[in-house]
Amino acid sequence: MTKIQLAKTDTRAPKKLQKEAIKKETQKFIFRMEELQNLMYAESKHALLVVLQGMDASGKDGVVKNVFTAVNPMGCRVIAFKKPTEPEMKHDFLWRVHAQVPEKGMIHIFNRSHYEDVLIQRVHHWVDEATILQRFQHINNFEKLLQDTNTHVLKFYLHVSKEEQLARLQERMSDKTKMWKHNEADMRERELWNDYRKAYESVFENCASSAPWHIIPADQNWYKEYLIAKKVVETLEALKMKFPGLKKEE
Amino acid sequence: MTKIQLAKTDTRAPKKLQKEAIKKETQKFIFRMEELQNLMYAESKHALLVVLQGMDASGKDGVVKNVFTAVNPMGCRVIAFKKPTEPEMKHDFLWRVHAQVPEKGMIHIFNRSHYEDVLIQRVHHWVDEATILQRFQHINNFEKLLQDTNTHVLKFYLHVSKEEQLARLQERMSDKTKMWKHNEADMRERELWNDYRKAYESVFENCASSAPWHIIPADQNWYKEYLIAKKVVETLEALKMKFPGLKKEE
Repeated sequence: MTKIQLAKTDTRAPKKLQKEAIKKETQKFIFRMEELQNLMYAESKHALLVVLQGMDASGKDGVVKNVFTAVNPMGCRVIAFKKPTEPEMKHDFLWRVHAQVPEKGMIHIFNRSHYEDVLIQRVHHWVDEATILQRFQHINNFEKLLQDTNTHVLKFYLHVSKEEQLARLQERMSDKTKMWKHNEADMRERELWNDYRKAYESVFENCASSAPWHIIPADQNWYKEYLIAKKVVETLEALKMKFPGLKKEE
Repeated sequence: MTKIQLAKTDTRAPKKLQKEAIKKETQKFIFRMEELQNLMYAESKHALLVVLQGMDASGKDGVVKNVFTAVNPMGCRVIAFKKPTEPEMKHDFLWRVHAQVPEKGMIHIFNRSHYEDVLIQRVHHWVDEATILQRFQHINNFEKLLQDTNTHVLKFYLHVSKEEQLARLQERMSDKTKMWKHNEADMRERELWNDYRKAYESVFENCASSAPWHIIPADQNWYKEYLIAKKVVETLEALKMKFPGLKKEE
């Protein structure tokens, strides 16, 4: 396996792609996703866990809003993992995460996830390196448990350039509808860009044994949304789900 | 490692032991356990998970009642795992178990546990053998996660003889204070004694990598209680816990 080097990986769509044509494709995937989720809910044999990671302003919220827009909310739940609460801190780092995995028939979207425990915590040296390596193993084991029990794990890294991130963070300071997202700390975290980049590359190398990472060029929303919608649909199609017939009385 | 063969393992105390002297020792351990649990609660760095397994009428309830009798209930919780509910069935088999692990400072006692998923389910062929082998691995990984994060796992198998079990099951049918424990199914399960024995031996062989099994001769309650109280105290003593000093204001 070749190592992923983010600095050498595109953050934009190939030039030959035509935005309007791609957007039409995306719409088709989004409607197909709604049908497939309905089928998954009815069959109740599989579940889908979508993990979204990326730097600040890489567009995680936008993916939730624009890609999963057609899905019946009854069958889809978003979980945003924030700073752990005190009871959460008193358990292993996967405790709060395991509690939120989807039951059969459901899609859960993790907006940030257990990966923060090997990213922000590593970059700020809140835990030692030996613990980080242990956590990689625990994450792989945990994702294997999910995969082995029909909870399919799709991990996306939203790959945004440092320049595009700056533009978006600045927009949050000037656009009244986006000011609520502004966070003083984001600019300070931005100074740690290279440390985060290395921490992410280490995650891609060490945490792919149970479920691979999908690196999504994320400077252009239309391309990002296309790639994710396409991948979700392909994943669900591959499950060959069927509507169950009439239930027999037991 | 030599394999554990239950048929060749004593279910009774060595003859030389004197019951009354042992019972006095047990009392000392029980009082020491109360002190140690108080210390663990104050320090809040460690947690203890006690897993109780054994055939029907092997005395699991008695261990809870008689060994953990002095511990402050604020720092100790018993979780009896029964037939999974519908939402539990719609998740991986460790989901409901992980949710119930102790937070730092606490003792949790599992009266039956995740091991039922590789015991009763195997004996009755509710799942295939490949799934059982996968589950062994997931159990070891799960217990390693706990051990790595200061949740110490103590696993006890209460080893009762087939004759003693019969006597106890019959007592449940004649003693008015015990009739509520009588369950028609227990006698039918008893006919599967050898299948359960083999399934347990397989568990001891395959699920010891993260936390070892302690086989407890359980025909005599006084000896069973002595061994468990002793092991719990030794485990807590080894943690070298200390009362934290005055908290500094942050």
